[in-house]
Amino acid sequence: MDLNGVEIEDTFAEAFDIYVSKFLITAATQKFAKIAADETVGFGSSVIMCPAEAGIDRYVPPNESPDGRPGYVVMICHPKKDELEHQLLERIGQCVLTSATTAVFDDMGSEADEKLKIGYKLKFFGDGFEKEDQVAGRTVYKIPIMSGDFIIEGELGIKKGVAGGNFFVMAENQASALLGAEVAVDAIENVPGTITPFPGGIVASGSKIGSKYKFMSASTNEKFCPTLRGEEGVTCEIPDGINGIYEIVIDGVSEKALEEAMKAGISAAVKIPGVKKIYAGNYGGTLGAYQIWLTKLF
Amino acid sequence: MDLNGVEIEDTFAEAFDIYVSKFLITAATQKFAKIAADETVGFGSSVIMCPAEAGIDRYVPPNESPDGRPGYVVMICHPKKDELEHQLLERIGQCVLTSATTAVFDDMGSEADEKLKIGYKLKFFGDGFEKEDQVAGRTVYKIPIMSGDFIIEGELGIKKGVAGGNFFVMAENQASALLGAEVAVDAIENVPGTITPFPGGIVASGSKIGSKYKFMSASTNEKFCPTLRGEEGVTCEIPDGINGIYEIVIDGVSEKALEEAMKAGISAAVKIPGVKKIYAGNYGGTLGAYQIWLTKLF
Amino acid sequence: MDLNGVEIEDTFAEAFDIYVSKFLITAATQKFAKIAADETVGFGSSVIMCPAEAGIDRYVPPNESPDGRPGYVVMICHPKKDELEHQLLERIGQCVLTSATTAVFDDMGSEADEKLKIGYKLKFFGDGFEKEDQVAGRTVYKIPIMSGDFIIEGELGIKKGVAGGNFFVMAENQASALLGAEVAVDAIENVPGTITPFPGGIVASGSKIGSKYKFMSASTNEKFCPTLRGEEGVTCEIPDGINGIYEIVIDGVSEKALEEAMKAGISAAVKIPGVKKIYAGNYGGTLGAYQIWLTKLF
Amino acid sequence: MDLNGVEIEDTFAEAFDIYVSKFLITAATQKFAKIAADETVGFGSSVIMCPAEAGIDRYVPPNESPDGRPGYVVMICHPKKDELEHQLLERIGQCVLTSATTAVFDDMGSEADEKLKIGYKLKFFGDGFEKEDQVAGRTVYKIPIMSGDFIIEGELGIKKGVAGGNFFVMAENQASALLGAEVAVDAIENVPGTITPFPGGIVASGSKIGSKYKFMSASTNEKFCPTLRGEEGVTCEIPDGINGIYEIVIDGVSEKALEEAMKAGISAAVKIPGVKKIYAGNYGGTLGAYQIWLTKLF
Repeated sequence: MDLNGVEIEDTFAEAFDIYVSKFLITAATQKFAKIAADETVGFGSSVIMCPAEAGIDRYVPPNESPDGRPGYVVMICHPKKDELEHQLLERIGQCVLTSATTAVFDDMGSEADEKLKIGYKLKFFGDGFEKEDQVAGRTVYKIPIMSGDFIIEGELGIKKGVAGGNFFVMAENQASALLGAEVAVDAIENVPGTITPFPGGIVASGSKIGSKYKFMSASTNEKFCPTLRGEEGVTCEIPDGINGIYEIVIDGVSEKALEEAMKAGISAAVKIPGVKKIYAGNYGGTLGAYQIWLTKLF
Repeated sequence: MDLNGVEIEDTFAEAFDIYVSKFLITAATQKFAKIAADETVGFGSSVIMCPAEAGIDRYVPPNESPDGRPGYVVMICHPKKDELEHQLLERIGQCVLTSATTAVFDDMGSEADEKLKIGYKLKFFGDGFEKEDQVAGRTVYKIPIMSGDFIIEGELGIKKGVAGGNFFVMAENQASALLGAEVAVDAIENVPGTITPFPGGIVASGSKIGSKYKFMSASTNEKFCPTLRGEEGVTCEIPDGINGIYEIVIDGVSEKALEEAMKAGISAAVKIPGVKKIYAGNYGGTLGAYQIWLTKLF
Repeated sequence: MDLNGVEIEDTFAEAFDIYVSKFLITAATQKFAKIAADETVGFGSSVIMCPAEAGIDRYVPPNESPDGRPGYVVMICHPKKDELEHQLLERIGQCVLTSATTAVFDDMGSEADEKLKIGYKLKFFGDGFEKEDQVAGRTVYKIPIMSGDFIIEGELGIKKGVAGGNFFVMAENQASALLGAEVAVDAIENVPGTITPFPGGIVASGSKIGSKYKFMSASTNEKFCPTLRGEEGVTCEIPDGINGIYEIVIDGVSEKALEEAMKAGISAAVKIPGVKKIYAGNYGGTLGAYQIWLTKLF
Repeated sequence: MDLNGVEIEDTFAEAFDIYVSKFLITAATQKFAKIAADETVGFGSSVIMCPAEAGIDRYVPPNESPDGRPGYVVMICHPKKDELEHQLLERIGQCVLTSATTAVFDDMGSEADEKLKIGYKLKFFGDGFEKEDQVAGRTVYKIPIMSGDFIIEGELGIKKGVAGGNFFVMAENQASALLGAEVAVDAIENVPGTITPFPGGIVASGSKIGSKYKFMSASTNEKFCPTLRGEEGVTCEIPDGINGIYEIVIDGVSEKALEEAMKAGISAAVKIPGVKKIYAGNYGGTLGAYQIWLTKLF
């Protein structure tokens, strides 16, 4: 298939079940909300070695937030529910509660499969001086801190979502592949319920499972490394004329959200001169519950 | 003591030993170096519940870096050396190696107590296709990845540094305390070998050790919570006229670096109208190896 | 009147007729769209001495723009129609056409009183090599440039709008007034068809008309200067307990848009501790066509 | 000549005399200093149709500025001295004086050919309430404004500098040329006494003098437009394999500063894969006083 002159490979992204939380961090200013959100989702690119996969879903303007202040919705994801709960307690406790002027509200709403008592548990930081209150019809806790009060909703919803949506931007050089990946991330930013957890939304070092070294569970995907083309022992699978590849990885609240994000991202990437092909990563369908076929997106 | 009309309390910040790593992340552009650095130091405010304390030390312009590209020096700190090594492997492996166009170089140089083989260990991601090379006289590994090659110096230096340098900015309202804290962070940014690991460099929720709840190892410092003034059971220690308090916490490569950072930060904060007092947190000298007296800084 | 414990003075903002243009700058990435927009609206705070009043209205995500790319809507305003046309030709010609990967589309749509042939006139830069084309049903010109093609819609709409909507944030110190002003600007950012043309949206130096120096048409409003309280020859009109004042000035496509922006901004400002009073600037109704009474907004 | 595998054309950049001002804008925080600087240098890409050429020279940390606060040095340039003075009065008066918490200091020091009484003239905004004062040995004026006092040094130095330093980054596609231009701008940012006045430092639409339309003094440089290759009536001068070109234009305090900036920028650009050639623009030496030969820089 061809989109704007760019070949869309007839393959699929293989995606996995994951538990997803989605909540809103507000602050006095957009700047302080962004500072808190960035700290909260940091060190959160992949659960291969990070304690969670995390990212910013979207900006919420003051007139759309429960407390009339600007904020960012963040998503934190983990394959195990109890680990996700740990991560919520640690990341909100250390990165939001400690941030200037912040508050936390649920953003999963009626989509939630389950509610975790995150605010309820964090309130004990108040050492007995915390108080229950209401903001816009939501039950919150007011925890007195040195700069004023920290407000957090008692329960935050989680649901089963989907991780590992992905596509590769292949281009005639590294700069084109990178610009193609950047515009894809800009486009995906606008798809609700999805994040691109890697740094800047982009993966520079897509990997394969396993390695010749037994102690490594994942290693470089040498078949797709441009600098290994022609190297002995490498079966290069990079088409001729491709010299740069970046991958976009997406986590979402649902398969449908992933599909929308992949479609928006690919549609943007193919507009960049030098982008030649869109590809996707999978394990032959043996590992993940979901197969998102690139050509069916369009 | 009085500085620019602001009272400097005659007390000390109690600080602790910590292991510190300090390395440079370069990238094609300043923007991509910043993206990688931010991801690497995220979820890194306090080892109470974060896996490390981390922050950006300084910007390095292209003409001062080993590979002639712009970069950021980041510091990652942990009380235990083996945990610090784990953190370096995980954070560089997941947040820098995966970032577009990045490379990693040691920035501890001859100050290092010890060299950890971080680059040497991460090179195995190359699955045998990695190669040893030299950049500006440094031994590096070139790891082929999908977007090109990732370069990392074989060994990164660490040293014993000092954590928990701190001061409180006390002001007549929250906004003044916050602006005082912001200008302090801007000033500390320019002191080499120091970071302010909390979000935006500022702590909104300074804590005390222990709690009435046995399962909490730390809790809100109710004696310094403005909204608890006059509350039954609270011995308020906030001076009259103070209604907002933010804390700055600093980790550094040495006690001297901490002192410089605290001096720079306090000197900036006292210029903000509404800032009334500078204070510091300690445990009576029972816990930390270092006592940094505020009044001796000036 | 009292809002969240803050006094709303029973006075009005006096506003004026002005010609307003509103157009969309798109680019490959959000970053490049922002660079172009910032350059275009710079040196554009007040027509007292700037060649125009200009600002960013809002961000437009890729799926809502005519060419499927991210962009920013900017507004450029001038009391004289022919000067506005000059400014559009100069600012788009020098600040957008020269920016990497940009395009320009009308954003006034059916609200326009009149269409100016801005794209039609700028196309002559193509020296005969320009071509007429269509994008999303709009007539555009493709102008070949060194980096590719620059696309601009042939006609850009303008209308009679309203300038000089304003309010003063008065607080117990400068930091509170500043934070109050910042949150007001964040809130106004979300009101379509309005801009806050001063730097960061905030006026630090509100002025009065005239001066004791004959060559000055405007000068400091000494009655509202906190550092002149008690100075001989000054009739201070600042209420007791106020030590910092910032003004927000708003231009909009209509009186209704101004009212919404003022309401959103004031609603946000009154939430900041230390903000004591909201005031507005006028000339007794002698100069402007519009009187926007603060208390009628709520 | 060849640099990192990229051809450096044996040609020269033709540069011109221009009057240059260089001054420091400080503010309470780095953020507010940046806001003021950005507004001040906006609408300042080229004097072809902008009222000045302007840009940010460098960041100055708190411990290196006269008032101990963070700031940005900006440069404003104009071929005519009286126009430069006008621009200084207008841009400082409207974009810095109006910005929150700012102050202005000379940064030309002993390099100045002449001192303009900019602060002396702007002080009349104080309507008689302004006062002379000293900051770090400099004579300043304190002008009372609504948010506090605005401080400005009485005299700001100007000198004869050089405008129009330039080079072209030619690459196999637009993305590579753009990334090459971006890294060049990052590198030039670190060369003191130079600015890249176009948006983001990059020119997307390099022009030739004159046009077939008599009313146009400049028009697109069709010989270097990739989309016109093969078009009838166009003598394409773009080498084979080049499909994207961006130009960097530099103004500086001296020819030496321009040379350093061009060298730094070119050295960075040639590292980007896909960049094929560096070129420069001139008028055969008939117009400008300076010829900066590319190959002599290395």
